Amino acid sequence: MPATLSGIGPFDHLVARGAVAEATSAAAWLHAQLDVEAALAAAQAAAGEIPADAGEAIVAACRTLDLDLAALGAATERNGVPVIGLVEQLRGAVGDAARFVHHGSTSQDIMDTAAMVVAVRAGALTVDVLDQALGLVDALSTSDGATPMIGRTLGQFALPTTFTNVTGRWRRGLVEAAGALRTLAAELPVQLGGPVGDESSYGPHGAEIAAGMAERLGLAVPDGPWSTVRTPIARLAGAWGVVGTVVGDVATQLVALMASDVGELAERADDAGGSSSMAHKRNPVAAISARAAALQVPGHVATLLHAAGGHDFERASGAWHAEWPALNSLMRAGGAAADWLVTSLRRVEVDTDRMATNVRVAEQERNG
Amino acid sequence: MPATLSGIGPFDHLVARGAVAEATSAAAWLHAQLDVEAALAAAQAAAGEIPADAGEAIVAACRTLDLDLAALGAATERNGVPVIGLVEQLRGAVGDAARFVHHGSTSQDIMDTAAMVVAVRAGALTVDVLDQALGLVDALSTSDGATPMIGRTLGQFALPTTFTNVTGRWRRGLVEAAGALRTLAAELPVQLGGPVGDESSYGPHGAEIAAGMAERLGLAVPDGPWSTVRTPIARLAGAWGVVGTVVGDVATQLVALMASDVGELAERADDAGGSSSMAHKRNPVAAISARAAALQVPGHVATLLHAAGGHDFERASGAWHAEWPALNSLMRAGGAAADWLVTSLRRVEVDTDRMATNVRVAEQERNG
Amino acid sequence: MPATLSGIGPFDHLVARGAVAEATSAAAWLHAQLDVEAALAAAQAAAGEIPADAGEAIVAACRTLDLDLAALGAATERNGVPVIGLVEQLRGAVGDAARFVHHGSTSQDIMDTAAMVVAVRAGALTVDVLDQALGLVDALSTSDGATPMIGRTLGQFALPTTFTNVTGRWRRGLVEAAGALRTLAAELPVQLGGPVGDESSYGPHGAEIAAGMAERLGLAVPDGPWSTVRTPIARLAGAWGVVGTVVGDVATQLVALMASDVGELAERADDAGGSSSMAHKRNPVAAISARAAALQVPGHVATLLHAAGGHDFERASGAWHAEWPALNSLMRAGGAAADWLVTSLRRVEVDTDRMATNVRVAEQERNG
Amino acid sequence: MPATLSGIGPFDHLVARGAVAEATSAAAWLHAQLDVEAALAAAQAAAGEIPADAGEAIVAACRTLDLDLAALGAATERNGVPVIGLVEQLRGAVGDAARFVHHGSTSQDIMDTAAMVVAVRAGALTVDVLDQALGLVDALSTSDGATPMIGRTLGQFALPTTFTNVTGRWRRGLVEAAGALRTLAAELPVQLGGPVGDESSYGPHGAEIAAGMAERLGLAVPDGPWSTVRTPIARLAGAWGVVGTVVGDVATQLVALMASDVGELAERADDAGGSSSMAHKRNPVAAISARAAALQVPGHVATLLHAAGGHDFERASGAWHAEWPALNSLMRAGGAAADWLVTSLRRVEVDTDRMATNVRVAEQERNG
Repeated sequence: MPATLSGIGPFDHLVARGAVAEATSAAAWLHAQLDVEAALAAAQAAAGEIPADAGEAIVAACRTLDLDLAALGAATERNGVPVIGLVEQLRGAVGDAARFVHHGSTSQDIMDTAAMVVAVRAGALTVDVLDQALGLVDALSTSDGATPMIGRTLGQFALPTTFTNVTGRWRRGLVEAAGALRTLAAELPVQLGGPVGDESSYGPHGAEIAAGMAERLGLAVPDGPWSTVRTPIARLAGAWGVVGTVVGDVATQLVALMASDVGELAERADDAGGSSSMAHKRNPVAAISARAAALQVPGHVATLLHAAGGHDFERASGAWHAEWPALNSLMRAGGAAADWLVTSLRRVEVDTDRMATNVRVAEQERNG
Repeated sequence: MPATLSGIGPFDHLVARGAVAEATSAAAWLHAQLDVEAALAAAQAAAGEIPADAGEAIVAACRTLDLDLAALGAATERNGVPVIGLVEQLRGAVGDAARFVHHGSTSQDIMDTAAMVVAVRAGALTVDVLDQALGLVDALSTSDGATPMIGRTLGQFALPTTFTNVTGRWRRGLVEAAGALRTLAAELPVQLGGPVGDESSYGPHGAEIAAGMAERLGLAVPDGPWSTVRTPIARLAGAWGVVGTVVGDVATQLVALMASDVGELAERADDAGGSSSMAHKRNPVAAISARAAALQVPGHVATLLHAAGGHDFERASGAWHAEWPALNSLMRAGGAAADWLVTSLRRVEVDTDRMATNVRVAEQERNG
Repeated sequence: MPATLSGIGPFDHLVARGAVAEATSAAAWLHAQLDVEAALAAAQAAAGEIPADAGEAIVAACRTLDLDLAALGAATERNGVPVIGLVEQLRGAVGDAARFVHHGSTSQDIMDTAAMVVAVRAGALTVDVLDQALGLVDALSTSDGATPMIGRTLGQFALPTTFTNVTGRWRRGLVEAAGALRTLAAELPVQLGGPVGDESSYGPHGAEIAAGMAERLGLAVPDGPWSTVRTPIARLAGAWGVVGTVVGDVATQLVALMASDVGELAERADDAGGSSSMAHKRNPVAAISARAAALQVPGHVATLLHAAGGHDFERASGAWHAEWPALNSLMRAGGAAADWLVTSLRRVEVDTDRMATNVRVAEQERNG
Repeated sequence: MPATLSGIGPFDHLVARGAVAEATSAAAWLHAQLDVEAALAAAQAAAGEIPADAGEAIVAACRTLDLDLAALGAATERNGVPVIGLVEQLRGAVGDAARFVHHGSTSQDIMDTAAMVVAVRAGALTVDVLDQALGLVDALSTSDGATPMIGRTLGQFALPTTFTNVTGRWRRGLVEAAGALRTLAAELPVQLGGPVGDESSYGPHGAEIAAGMAERLGLAVPDGPWSTVRTPIARLAGAWGVVGTVVGDVATQLVALMASDVGELAERADDAGGSSSMAHKRNPVAAISARAAALQVPGHVATLLHAAGGHDFERASGAWHAEWPALNSLMRAGGAAADWLVTSLRRVEVDTDRMATNVRVAEQERNG
């Protein structure tokens, strides 16, 4: 039966949706590792640490290499890290330049730097998605912002306000979430330390090579190897925590305003939002999915911070490896949440009559 | 390039390994949903709520249905839940029995019960893995348990003990972890509530149908619908928390005893555990991976509990959906951790000479 | 100004309320440690490991000892664990029996067993609170259970049901939560291992002493020392996770039904629930506080599991100590949540007219 | 017996130590609320919204008010928030100015702004502590940085490096952690929205009043009310996550290097670090406590993010209240961890002979 599905994560429709899903796929991580090896070789060639033609050959091979994925999978199982198998295949593809591949380097340099590359890409894509959400919020504000509506605090009718009060908050949150990712992008540095993290394996030009890689990869120049003091990972956790918080809040408020008892917003039905038992229902599927995806964020943040804060010696014995799935799931869930939010905002209909009715009901209750 | 990888989760080698990975795949979840629809139809037929031949036709179709996965994926996006699309396809496959498919039922009944089915299967497979680990620990105890070794507390040499002190703890933990999963299996009930969770849509035989489904699916008979009070989900979190704790502890202790400075255990090298920069190294890849996988468990538990404890009205608007990826990732990570632990225990070599040396060194330090 | 408050945790009104707060206080933990030392001495005397009169003197001193708290605080800072300073003071109070105090024992035996004692007491008190909640729910069901109300799924009007559908779910959840704590109480064992966890320091009667302590303390007899494989801690996390989930769900549903837009339930105003800016408001303070307290549970569970799953060697270098505040905060938050829930249920008023109105509104919406 | 202890949190020696403990006490929160009321009155007086003498009277009363704590406690229980009772008492102390106290304001404005005030103070104190740690690390680097030591990756001997490789990482992490708190301090804004968060209750000078409060309180000027889109809370979670990660990493590495089997560092014994059963032991109490405190951080971050991302309508019904204890515990644990780290770094002794020995042992192992 659905055997072909066996490799796809269940519930990817919820937590691995949109552009970020592709940017955090297994293929994306392998691409990023090859990009890092290419940047390393190019920077080493520029610094005179490896011959120029070896550098060129390696860069070219990183672009065109047709990986043997079965072999790579087996090597990853064996080594606990994909880099070793990937370097073997890369060496096999560059002839005489083989000994200059991954020169002076170590798995952690490649994996950590690749993680930063993946994170910068996933972050940039999510900034785009958040900007789309912002545009939709602004359109709502333009069309219906002046509509009076009843404010509610602790679930209780409070005082009248207008819909702009709501969209204004959403705007401020979305601007800040995108800003957090933009700031983050400038803080994610190359990792370059070599076998024990002291840069000595890279010869006298370690700092120059790191800077060269940073330029080629669009990353920050590190202030030395960070290896086992994981501030970039913690900053990633923080920025995606901001994204999850904002999307979670906006989605929670969408869901609340779309409840039948409130009825001030709704997701346009089209063909979405059906019920298996109640044909009349119109479920706010996208807002609910945004909320469900955003609810994954805090747990991934906690796992990532736990891993990031427990690195021993010069390369951690488990805590490092534990970061990978947590980081990837964090970015995926945050990206999917933002993507579902855009879908919901696209579908939003404002029921200005209902807003007016609810203001009156609240007024009566307040006076009576 | 490695475009064919795009659907596979990165780091599955770490967190989606072993039998549990397959038992928690997208295909496994769809199978489970079909199994639940089959059990529902069979139980309804037995209770006289639907015609016997309709029941038989539905059961047969659930076994052989060739799902149109693209259509199912699109329907899941649209509806926020896979059940609706699946029921449509199932109805298309049973001719006149179509109107008896999913009779009186609702998405939550099918998804919650399917989750219990998946959980029972994943739990049973993990019990097997934990039992394998137990056998390997017992073999270690038999071969080398009497060897004196130095006990260490807070990382400091304390007093001599024997290796059985270590393996005995591991044994007790593994027995308890398997026991927690066995106990859990008997506590996971069918969900049967209908559209608003009051069983009324199932006619007068609701309790009988639930019991019939439980028998067919190997689940517990519920004491009424649990719908939005999520104790089975919280119990799942608890039991897998025990598994993660035990595997995490044993793996942490393996990693500690395999450190070069301690050197009392090692993972047999074979071809595993290489370094990209240091050919002489012999990394305890399996123990480290077990630890990294176990480190994912607490975060998934927290997400699952957060979702499970926030259900509103008769079906939650986001909290329910948020449970799915968290539950699945939890079982996958716990199962993968146990699987890696077995791999490590299979590779373990005990260095009794080093144990003796360390006892002497500690003795000297204590006396000097 | 309010300097006298400096030792009280802020927000204790939220997360350290009710009987559990007292049972998990600093005093309660010290009492429990003295109870464990007393039980150890009594069991050792009964087993013939220490003289009978020494045992009696120690038991008596544990009951009457007037601790020098300043000295104890300083010793705890110095040693990282309170037991050492407590044992010093206890030895000072028993004259010639001093050398039989804490005989063959180690800090971890006392702390772990004291944690179990505190947990059993906190659990029993919370069972009482949950039983009170159950009584209140049953009273609601008796008085108003037959009232028709509209069921809501994903926040949308679904089909009519009755209020018993709601209270029945709450009942099942509360029964299970109390049951989880009752089951747990029978699973929390004495820890008795001695300096390196192999029981050798307790002479030939280790198992007998452990059993004697268990009987005196109302704990389970251990199947050997568990020391660094932390299943009882993980089981605690699991059971309190069930409590938090159930209280969270019931409180979430109370808050939802008490929203102005729904208006089917309310907390009787009395003098509670005011607003600093809106005199007319009637906030469901207790339900909201129950929800806020329950929201603390998953994070504490995750911290506790992270600590519990990372124990190295024969006594963990940090992970053990990290369990204490997490465990205590977990039980406090869970207990406070249950206590606030009882307060809310005591205040609940059912608006059967509003329920009827909402059924009609939903009917109109469904048909129109 | 130790009944006087009943109000003190157990394990405060671990998680509520140092300057941050005082800055996050119940008294500190009440002070901060009074400071906010004072700043509000002063800014409103400056903007002409309230009479100048009323403003002065309120500011003066906020400085000198002798709160009736019992009454305040009862009011907090009743209202679910301390602000209402505090405003009552403040009004009672200012005579005719009473009606200008808390003018146009609402509980959330005061609590949220007070939280920012507490956070800025706790952050600044922790920056000092981190700077102390930095000074101690630099001193270590100066005295012993050039000492060769063996690098270890995945717990295995790798290649020789020097101690500066270790201290350099610690330096970079500590600089970044302090930097994260400094950046954060500039991002924490005044909350000023009034009853439903739209600023309308503050008259035409809302923005001016907010700016005036920001200046008086040392906070950032908000870009409008943020009320239920909780980016400042998420940013707090992120920055303290960086602190916890750095302290956790440094403490983990201290503990690892202080293990008997490694022996390259130790905490000077003095009278600290005893064992209740083994007089010869010298436990690295401070490093272990730093690690244990840092291990609390991720769980508090997750709770805080969960609460922060679930705010409904114009003021959340539970999620807002849930932030308070999580935020406070987060800052306390992070501050305590940093404080313990300083204690450990003060006690550190470097065993350069052992470093040399270990380099030789690793060399032999590598060659043999």
